[in-house]
Amino acid sequence: MKIVITGGAGFLGLRLAKELLARGSLTASSGRAEAISRIVILDVVRAMLDDPRVRCVAGDVADPTLIAEVIGDDTATIFHLAAVVSGQAEAEFDLGMRVNLDATRILLEACRKLPVAPRVVFTSSCAVFGGALPALVPETWNLQPQTSYGTQKVIGELLVNDYSRKGFIDGRALRLPTICVRPGIPNLAASSFASGIIREPLAGVEAICPVGPETPMWLSSPRAVVGHFIAAHEVPAAAFGASRSLNLPGITVSVGEMAATLERVAGREVASRIRWEPDARIAKIVSGWPAGVETARAREMGMQADAGFEEIVRAYIADEHP
Amino acid sequence: MKIVITGGAGFLGLRLAKELLARGSLTASSGRAEAISRIVILDVVRAMLDDPRVRCVAGDVADPTLIAEVIGDDTATIFHLAAVVSGQAEAEFDLGMRVNLDATRILLEACRKLPVAPRVVFTSSCAVFGGALPALVPETWNLQPQTSYGTQKVIGELLVNDYSRKGFIDGRALRLPTICVRPGIPNLAASSFASGIIREPLAGVEAICPVGPETPMWLSSPRAVVGHFIAAHEVPAAAFGASRSLNLPGITVSVGEMAATLERVAGREVASRIRWEPDARIAKIVSGWPAGVETARAREMGMQADAGFEEIVRAYIADEHP
Repeated sequence: MKIVITGGAGFLGLRLAKELLARGSLTASSGRAEAISRIVILDVVRAMLDDPRVRCVAGDVADPTLIAEVIGDDTATIFHLAAVVSGQAEAEFDLGMRVNLDATRILLEACRKLPVAPRVVFTSSCAVFGGALPALVPETWNLQPQTSYGTQKVIGELLVNDYSRKGFIDGRALRLPTICVRPGIPNLAASSFASGIIREPLAGVEAICPVGPETPMWLSSPRAVVGHFIAAHEVPAAAFGASRSLNLPGITVSVGEMAATLERVAGREVASRIRWEPDARIAKIVSGWPAGVETARAREMGMQADAGFEEIVRAYIADEHP
Repeated sequence: MKIVITGGAGFLGLRLAKELLARGSLTASSGRAEAISRIVILDVVRAMLDDPRVRCVAGDVADPTLIAEVIGDDTATIFHLAAVVSGQAEAEFDLGMRVNLDATRILLEACRKLPVAPRVVFTSSCAVFGGALPALVPETWNLQPQTSYGTQKVIGELLVNDYSRKGFIDGRALRLPTICVRPGIPNLAASSFASGIIREPLAGVEAICPVGPETPMWLSSPRAVVGHFIAAHEVPAAAFGASRSLNLPGITVSVGEMAATLERVAGREVASRIRWEPDARIAKIVSGWPAGVETARAREMGMQADAGFEEIVRAYIADEHP
C-alpha cells in the first residue's frame, strides 16, 4: 500500500514515517493488513529519510496539480499533518487560510477522486476550543476557537466529517494536545515555549517563558502522539460513531510544575536557565486553550496518555541527549 | 447608508427589504442611526421590488467580480441570506460547497476590503446541530452537523466569527429555526413540508407529510425572524461576547400538533388534505435536527419567540389569504 504524509518533513511527520517503516504494514481500506510499499513525504522542504520505500517531494501543499500527482490513484492512506502553526496563522491570515483551509480542501477533493475511499488522518488541535471553558472540557462541548488557526482546524474537522459521511474518504480528525518536548528549534506556534523551556535549558541555553507558572498546559509527548496517529488509523470506522473528531489523550501540567520537573530531573542550574518574561500576545492565545479535555472515546479505542511529565522529560533526554 | 441583501429575491429577503424600507433607517458602524439611501438586492433571479432606493441585480453570488461590484466601497451592512437549501446541498454536494461556502468566503473577503468594517448578518440554521442531542440543546453544545448543508453553515459561522474577531467585519451569525409558514411553492429544503402541510391545504391542495406526527419541529414565523434579523443587526457588537453565533428564538411543536392546529383554525376538511406518507430520506435529515435550543442570549438581547403555533397560522392566513 502507498501512504502519503503531508507536512512530513516536520519532526512529527518524520517520526511517523520511521515508525511506519519499522512496522512495515498498515490496515488498508479492505480491513486487511497490507505491506507498506511506498511512503511519499510531501513538505515545503525535501525531507531527509533514506529508505528505498520512501519518496520525498518538496512543494506547495496548496497546489492542486502537485497534490493530484502525489496522491495519484493508488494512495490508500493519507496522514495530513501540513499546517501553518498558530502564531503564524494569527499574524499572516491569508497564509493560514491558504495552507490550513484551502490545502485541506484540495487534498480532500483529490481523495474523493480515488477509486477506493482512502483513510485520511487529519491533525487538528485543542485550539479548536475557546471562550469560557470548564476545567475539563466535555466531549460534547462547543467549538468556539479564539484564533484563526483554531478556526481553520475546526473547518478541517468539519470537512473530514462531511467527506467521511458522504463516503468520499474514511477520515479521522485528531485533536492534538500541545506536543512537548519538541526537538529542534523554536517555531512560530504560540505553544513553542512549552518545549523551549525544557529543550533549551538542557542544551545549556536560556529559554523565555512568556506565561505565568500557574498556566495549565494540556500535553502529549511526541512518542505518545505518533502512536495515537497509527492507532487512530487502525481503528475501524464504525468505532467513531457520529463524529470522526477525537480528543487525543494528554496530561494537564502547569508551567510551574514543568519547570519544577526539569529541576528535579536535570538539576537547579539547568532549570535556572528559564527566564520568566510575560508576553501578553502569547498569554492571550494560550489562556484560550483548555487545561484538559475528556478523552473517554480515545481511551475506549485503546489510546493511553503519557504516564506523567517526568517520564516525558526523561524520554526526551533519552532520545535527544543519549 | 447602503445595504446589500444576498438571496434577496427569496421571500425572507423581500420581506426584510420591505421592512427596512418601511423603517427608513438602521444603525451604521458609527453606532448612529442613518437613513437608508440604497438597498441592493442580489439573487440568481432579479427581485421585483419597486422603490427608488432599491436596485435589483441578477447574478451569481459566488462570482468575486460581481460581489466586488455590488458591495463597492460604500456598503455599510450586508444581510447574507443566499444559500442552497438542505435537501439540494445534500443531493448536489459541489453546488452546496460553491454557494454555501465559497460564496460566503468571497463575500467576507469583499467586506474585508471596505474602508469601514461593515455589519454582516449571516443566516445560519439549526441544521448546525446533529448527532445525539438533548431535548433542549444548551448554548454550549457541540456542533456536529449530519448534513452537508449544516456543515457549510457551521463553516460560515466560524468564518463570520473569525473575521469579526480580526476586525475585518462586525458580524452576527443567526441560527434560524425552520421557518413556517413559508408562502409560495415547495422548495428543496428537507423542511419544505413544514410549511406545505399548512399552506397547501389552505389553498385547497393536498400536501404530503413525509415524517410522523410525533416528530418535533423547532419553528419561527417569517414575521418573527425578519424582526430578529433587524434586532440582531441593531444590537451593539459587545453584547455578543466571545461568540457572534446566536440561536434565534423559536417554538417547539410536533407535526401532529401542527395538523391539529390547522384543523382547529381552518376546519376538518382543510386539515384532511394532509396525506401522511413517510419518506425515509427526509425523515433521516429531520430527525437529526434539534427539537428545541436554548435561546437565553437572544432573549437577553430583546428577541421574542412567536406566541404559539395558532398565532403563526392565523398570521399566515391574515398575510396571504386576507
